Amino acid sequence: MNRIRLGMVGGGQGAFIGAVHRMAARLDDRFDLVAGALSSNAARAQASADEIGLSRSYSDYRDMALAEAAREDGIQAVSIVTPNNMHLPMAKAFLEAGIHVICDKPMTATLAEAEELVQIAAGSKALFVLTHTYAGYHMVREARRLVAEGALGKIRMVHVEYVQDWLSEPVTGKQADWRVDPAQSGGGAIGDIGSHAAHLARYTSGLEIEAVAAQLSTFVEGRKVDDDAQMLLRLSGGAKGMLWASQVAPGHENDIRVRVIGDKASVDWCQTRCNELRFAPLGEAPRILTTGGAGFQGQTRVPAGHPEGYLEAFAQIYSDAADAILAGSVPDHLPSLQDGLKGMRFIAASVRSSADDARWTRL
Amino acid sequence: MNRIRLGMVGGGQGAFIGAVHRMAARLDDRFDLVAGALSSNAARAQASADEIGLSRSYSDYRDMALAEAAREDGIQAVSIVTPNNMHLPMAKAFLEAGIHVICDKPMTATLAEAEELVQIAAGSKALFVLTHTYAGYHMVREARRLVAEGALGKIRMVHVEYVQDWLSEPVTGKQADWRVDPAQSGGGAIGDIGSHAAHLARYTSGLEIEAVAAQLSTFVEGRKVDDDAQMLLRLSGGAKGMLWASQVAPGHENDIRVRVIGDKASVDWCQTRCNELRFAPLGEAPRILTTGGAGFQGQTRVPAGHPEGYLEAFAQIYSDAADAILAGSVPDHLPSLQDGLKGMRFIAASVRSSADDARWTRL
Amino acid sequence: MNRIRLGMVGGGQGAFIGAVHRMAARLDDRFDLVAGALSSNAARAQASADEIGLSRSYSDYRDMALAEAAREDGIQAVSIVTPNNMHLPMAKAFLEAGIHVICDKPMTATLAEAEELVQIAAGSKALFVLTHTYAGYHMVREARRLVAEGALGKIRMVHVEYVQDWLSEPVTGKQADWRVDPAQSGGGAIGDIGSHAAHLARYTSGLEIEAVAAQLSTFVEGRKVDDDAQMLLRLSGGAKGMLWASQVAPGHENDIRVRVIGDKASVDWCQTRCNELRFAPLGEAPRILTTGGAGFQGQTRVPAGHPEGYLEAFAQIYSDAADAILAGSVPDHLPSLQDGLKGMRFIAASVRSSADDARWTRL
Amino acid sequence: MNRIRLGMVGGGQGAFIGAVHRMAARLDDRFDLVAGALSSNAARAQASADEIGLSRSYSDYRDMALAEAAREDGIQAVSIVTPNNMHLPMAKAFLEAGIHVICDKPMTATLAEAEELVQIAAGSKALFVLTHTYAGYHMVREARRLVAEGALGKIRMVHVEYVQDWLSEPVTGKQADWRVDPAQSGGGAIGDIGSHAAHLARYTSGLEIEAVAAQLSTFVEGRKVDDDAQMLLRLSGGAKGMLWASQVAPGHENDIRVRVIGDKASVDWCQTRCNELRFAPLGEAPRILTTGGAGFQGQTRVPAGHPEGYLEAFAQIYSDAADAILAGSVPDHLPSLQDGLKGMRFIAASVRSSADDARWTRL
Repeated sequence: MNRIRLGMVGGGQGAFIGAVHRMAARLDDRFDLVAGALSSNAARAQASADEIGLSRSYSDYRDMALAEAAREDGIQAVSIVTPNNMHLPMAKAFLEAGIHVICDKPMTATLAEAEELVQIAAGSKALFVLTHTYAGYHMVREARRLVAEGALGKIRMVHVEYVQDWLSEPVTGKQADWRVDPAQSGGGAIGDIGSHAAHLARYTSGLEIEAVAAQLSTFVEGRKVDDDAQMLLRLSGGAKGMLWASQVAPGHENDIRVRVIGDKASVDWCQTRCNELRFAPLGEAPRILTTGGAGFQGQTRVPAGHPEGYLEAFAQIYSDAADAILAGSVPDHLPSLQDGLKGMRFIAASVRSSADDARWTRL
Repeated sequence: MNRIRLGMVGGGQGAFIGAVHRMAARLDDRFDLVAGALSSNAARAQASADEIGLSRSYSDYRDMALAEAAREDGIQAVSIVTPNNMHLPMAKAFLEAGIHVICDKPMTATLAEAEELVQIAAGSKALFVLTHTYAGYHMVREARRLVAEGALGKIRMVHVEYVQDWLSEPVTGKQADWRVDPAQSGGGAIGDIGSHAAHLARYTSGLEIEAVAAQLSTFVEGRKVDDDAQMLLRLSGGAKGMLWASQVAPGHENDIRVRVIGDKASVDWCQTRCNELRFAPLGEAPRILTTGGAGFQGQTRVPAGHPEGYLEAFAQIYSDAADAILAGSVPDHLPSLQDGLKGMRFIAASVRSSADDARWTRL
Repeated sequence: MNRIRLGMVGGGQGAFIGAVHRMAARLDDRFDLVAGALSSNAARAQASADEIGLSRSYSDYRDMALAEAAREDGIQAVSIVTPNNMHLPMAKAFLEAGIHVICDKPMTATLAEAEELVQIAAGSKALFVLTHTYAGYHMVREARRLVAEGALGKIRMVHVEYVQDWLSEPVTGKQADWRVDPAQSGGGAIGDIGSHAAHLARYTSGLEIEAVAAQLSTFVEGRKVDDDAQMLLRLSGGAKGMLWASQVAPGHENDIRVRVIGDKASVDWCQTRCNELRFAPLGEAPRILTTGGAGFQGQTRVPAGHPEGYLEAFAQIYSDAADAILAGSVPDHLPSLQDGLKGMRFIAASVRSSADDARWTRL
Repeated sequence: MNRIRLGMVGGGQGAFIGAVHRMAARLDDRFDLVAGALSSNAARAQASADEIGLSRSYSDYRDMALAEAAREDGIQAVSIVTPNNMHLPMAKAFLEAGIHVICDKPMTATLAEAEELVQIAAGSKALFVLTHTYAGYHMVREARRLVAEGALGKIRMVHVEYVQDWLSEPVTGKQADWRVDPAQSGGGAIGDIGSHAAHLARYTSGLEIEAVAAQLSTFVEGRKVDDDAQMLLRLSGGAKGMLWASQVAPGHENDIRVRVIGDKASVDWCQTRCNELRFAPLGEAPRILTTGGAGFQGQTRVPAGHPEGYLEAFAQIYSDAADAILAGSVPDHLPSLQDGLKGMRFIAASVRSSADDARWTRL
């Protein structure tokens, strides 16, 4: 029994994703959360730390990185769960202190920052893991495995969508505010959820997105960032695809779907029915794969027929991160620095393409 | 009880859509099929006519048009169910003879032909109806009505797809042969099913497609027409959309789905569950509309909970055509000459856009 | 081309199921409806006949039977679509006149009548077909075939339900009135839809219902017949089952579902998704069977992926009846006189069991 | 931040439900697991404790109860996760030591034991909570709330099923062995999952099961307990119902569904789509309730559209137990001693009814 000592930056009172990271880290019992800079406001940081029973509270992440690195029982890894524009300086501080980084997505606010981060990470022995949560779903991994094993034949198309409605109208509040502020988020729907969609397309298909023809829109008047992104994709190996990410589509709470279609078969997964994977070989009856099927090769915490959900997917990323830390390297199936960089290139290319009347733009 | 005397051109032995038209015409008992030129081969025409108990058989549609127009009990309307390249000359012959035309889609093989047909029709008192079958589904019409009544607010996005897999591999046979021969079909997936998808988008949203950025592909080697079409749409009123039509996507028998999304609500319809319409107002629980709900204003042949299908939708088009013929004009809700022309413009623009690297192309 | 000359008794203006029978008879073009006693009121009969363009109208079914039997071009078959208490005398009149009978379900109003009808039919060379519509769905037939071929192994359980809500409150109107009048219907939910459910259980499983332990209820105050039936079943070969038929269950328009479960696999079909059959072999991924699958052995009018519905299922019964008439005998897959008798035994046993505190009662 | 100190009895290496309890206790961070008698074998108990990093390991639960009660930092609550026949003595030991008990279901192996346990608990100030997991699903609670608030009107019917296939064939292994051994389990499907189904029916409907007419079956030859239970229910207030629990139904991994039907509306929930609740008011379109809807009054850990699953439901029971311990009493919405007793009466009545040819048997 060897839990990894974990710290957290961000995630104080009123924040959303920090608590999710903590549940994810806790579920599989691979981490001990022992330190945090939960807020840059010292009083708020302390109150937040007290509320969750955290022993060591900091208000400055740089202090935290240095202090923890100096302790014998200091944190081995840190979760960064702040607005995007803080990811780079924070990751830098911890990586340079030799502390592994588990960072929320998108990796940074800008592509330039992402490139800088890649440089920084190259100089550190510490690992960097990006929490593209959806890569933690067991059925997403089954999809990826089937594609990789050739069960779909040559991939023809990849269709992915990530559609929400929570920003359908002008919204304020801690969650909404920073996400629609370009200075903090670096972008809108394309960054917040488009980056997830793009990763999911790449992760399941095993292909790279080579170029995009994108139209980004801002449907809510006065909003400073895009809130809808629709685009055509060209992927490696000649595959074609479509991607839709929206935060302003009434009737869609958080609908994520990916379809990978080869010349022999297709797979179809959506988060609403996240415990199933539709696998349809050409000329045969479609099959509904679950964790109970003879062919299932993934991991699950509960017997077949007992649904897992979003937190379990998130926990999988954390458990994989624990394994990675123990092994000393980030495996292929875990979203990495390179995935983060590719995600930022995707965002940047989408923005450029959209500005240029949806012209095909290479990543 | 006043059945309309109907003729048919095409639809002889071995054909597919002719028999479907006949069932559709028969279901609601509004037509008497009394004459046909079921094949251009006289013997085959006669054998086909005998098989279905048709009293008057022709082998030349021009002879048929003239002879029927001259009879007191001659046909009042004709169904044209041949490959696309024959639609123009046939429609011309019957329209000029004063016989109403019910024509399969797409309207013609080329845009030039479509424009010519519009001219010809303008000079005839006979009506022209296009069988965009999906406009006959009661729940598609409920979607259209809800949009028209403003229940969705201002339309933001329209997403439509029509996806098949029957041409996933090189295929031969009467059905496949003409559809993949550019001379007979005028195009591939974009014409055969893309035209349906485009109509469905327009029909439900009440918007016009103003421009497309399309990538057409031919995934099966050696095929002379496109077999997959993916595109971005710009619609009237600032709406944005995406359209996917494919005949080479394993696992998709004939999957049709349209989503219209406004700033107040969205509707979502797919053919697989054609008796339901998902209506989701912002901030409220999505509702599954059926023919049994208090709000249903459409027509159905059977009590709520008894599913109707494709043939019933097709029959609705025929019943509406019968009404139109009696009324002397084609109503808005019935696919018309103008819809056919717009469909051909859509196809032509898609082809041009695709040839020009997916550049935005106006219809 | 040899259409069967058909008559109809019942189904005049204001009736429901008569029009459905006519559409069903018409769809596959195997019948010509030429005569009818659409109402016992002469004026109403004539007006109804005129409305649907029927050439020969009668007001007395006995006159009709005699007159038609005497004509060289008289009807070969008759559809009986009246309230249940008229089925016996009408079927008698036509069978004795040598005219084939296609009769709505349940076969009669009482078990004694059913037994009498069996005697009468034994003395006639004419056939008797019962329109248990759901036996006409192609996927119900695939279920039956899979069971018969042993794909499910030994059958363990059969679960069937037929649930409506249209009688949830006191209702009046032509449809409701006779159905809740014991003198005309012979019973309530158990007869009207329970008989369908029982047939569906037998039809798919290939087993006989040997005994029932039933509780019939009347939830709407003042109603003279049962409106809800819940029961346990014992079937041949040791299978156990449950059956629920209700007309007073809000939220269920007309939900029909049957599950047959063997020791090797199960099948699951519901009318809401009538074009699919879920086939789940033990230890393998469930498969969604459609008409497009390689294994499909049934009949369909349209290509895979184009949904058929209730009218197509009904039309299948009519087409099979046409085949039966031409062949001179009723095949196993078509609901017959014996099925009707077993249905009446099922109803009678259910009523007796319910009156005896749900005691196990043999059919 | 005040975590409750928790112990566990059972749940050592090779066990299944113990690990699930631990994840459930951990997810919401309300408990610290500090002691355990994970096995009655001392070496195995120690190895199991080491594996999960447990500080205090016991091999005898009586020693544990006494020792922990004597410590100032002793456990405040214990989870009992052993075979059913050990529940009574273990609960007795801890309750008598003043330690709260969180016990897996069914409450005991026999009704007599359950009655004894109720007596014992009456003499203790410690609380008793039963882990009927499904009562922890947020949408199950929404169903319960809607019923309680009268949104369904007067309840007419309750239909519940819990269907598995993992015992479809003779199976051995730690999980299967004790469950099919009457001495350890006290029964088969009726106890293991029928008790869950009965609780779910009661929990959602707010009604008591007054009588059952049951047929229990053993489909797998040589098995000493029932593996399938089908029954009719009579519930308080005149409602009627049906319950099916099976462990031998191929194609059903762990399918749980409950429908509560009133005279004004119905609710329908199934575990496969556990984040949705279908709410269908009479005469209106059915609504798909989610956590994102305006009316949602429950608790969730993640934003709307992010699915929760079985572990989250289980965690809810634990969090509610934490609240109950702090409050000093078990609230209505948390499965209690009385629920456990009623569950045992349900099992006993079902067994008696089945032995008496499905005669109606009062609980």
